[in-house]
Amino acid sequence: MRPRFYAPKANISGENIVLPDYEGRHLSQVLRLTSGAEVALFDGNGHEFSGVVQDVTGSSVVVRIGSQCLPPALEPGLAITLASAVLKSRSMDNVVKYATLFGVSTIQPVVSMKSDVSLPALQQGKRMERWKRIAVSAAKQCGGAVVPSILPPCSFNELSESLVEVLYSGSPQLMLVEPSSSRGCLSISELEQPENREAALIIGPEGGWATEEVERGSTIFKLVTLGSRTFRAEVAPLVALASLFTAWKEF
Amino acid sequence: MRPRFYAPKANISGENIVLPDYEGRHLSQVLRLTSGAEVALFDGNGHEFSGVVQDVTGSSVVVRIGSQCLPPALEPGLAITLASAVLKSRSMDNVVKYATLFGVSTIQPVVSMKSDVSLPALQQGKRMERWKRIAVSAAKQCGGAVVPSILPPCSFNELSESLVEVLYSGSPQLMLVEPSSSRGCLSISELEQPENREAALIIGPEGGWATEEVERGSTIFKLVTLGSRTFRAEVAPLVALASLFTAWKEF
Repeated sequence: MRPRFYAPKANISGENIVLPDYEGRHLSQVLRLTSGAEVALFDGNGHEFSGVVQDVTGSSVVVRIGSQCLPPALEPGLAITLASAVLKSRSMDNVVKYATLFGVSTIQPVVSMKSDVSLPALQQGKRMERWKRIAVSAAKQCGGAVVPSILPPCSFNELSESLVEVLYSGSPQLMLVEPSSSRGCLSISELEQPENREAALIIGPEGGWATEEVERGSTIFKLVTLGSRTFRAEVAPLVALASLFTAWKEF
Repeated sequence: MRPRFYAPKANISGENIVLPDYEGRHLSQVLRLTSGAEVALFDGNGHEFSGVVQDVTGSSVVVRIGSQCLPPALEPGLAITLASAVLKSRSMDNVVKYATLFGVSTIQPVVSMKSDVSLPALQQGKRMERWKRIAVSAAKQCGGAVVPSILPPCSFNELSESLVEVLYSGSPQLMLVEPSSSRGCLSISELEQPENREAALIIGPEGGWATEEVERGSTIFKLVTLGSRTFRAEVAPLVALASLFTAWKEF
């Protein structure tokens, strides 16, 4: 199999493009490929092309785009926005990785009342860059041709507005809560399939949502649970996505 | 909340019992409890009692069993046997931990053709003891009152016989395969609910099943997939259990 590289600008056969720096470095320094090497390029939006390396100068790598091929892995017919509270370092890395394996279209990091990190600290740090690299690398690993967009972090209160921008109105916006935190919440397995195959899933931090957040959330989002069970924050997104994909026949 | 301890022999109020050594050590050396301390005891089969420490001598701890209480977390109405190929060290630890959070009733470690470890090496080593401790600790963490039985490792060929001992005949025995590995396999979301709420789920190692194993498996087990997706061995059990719990309305 040809080595695959993420090339967000790959879209016209016959054109030359420059790979992103970290992909160029991987090609030249890790895999030690040189001019003439045959590669595959995916644009992160579901398109994949063959390609031939034209020039390697340090980490600057030029590739000629060849013919378009079918992406090797099916992408979901569901467009999911995962709005996840920012977890501690490795846990959040895993959330980004696993969400990419599921093929979610957008990841919205959220700072909630019980999050371990503040919004200004997050905006100054390099975590956004790190998550983007992790998403690219997970898409390469699983053979997927979609890399989720990672939106700039927002607070829980800003969340509903940012979701309106991302989703058509009428798409389900599901907030995962503990079964004890509110009456009248549905189990994910009881959800009806959305008409336009699009939804947002909102998941809390290690310490769970604050009472005020569940109250506010209940006026905007549909509260859902994983039956009577509570899962650790690190695996909750994975379990909830698997449950949603099953309920909506994506598995 | 009272600190909880695993006491497999706890069953009659008013009796004195000795905690297992590692639980006694945790009580005396980590939590530094002494005579008179109020604790909770769970027997791993769904029963929970209050208790009062009577005597602490090193790691030997005697507790008087008090009244029976309702277990704090609901246990599944599904009895699942998870037969998982033995994965590399930390990955297998995670499989045991997450299976316990789901409340599976039995874990059957399996050595398959592409497993990294041999059956004799596994039988001599201390991994069984380690997995049992991990299961107890995961049950304590999630507030569950059931600790899955961990059966002695067996080879893939011995698997069908060992499952017959564990399950009633007629219970579904599901082998998770890659969608490309066999025609005519069902997606988990298409499965009908089992009449007696009991099933086995059989999951392969890092390198997947060998072709011979899928062939042999297809004559004994029902082959299932997670739609068109392949998940890494470490998370496949978690995703498959979440999918099964949703399809069978346990979530």
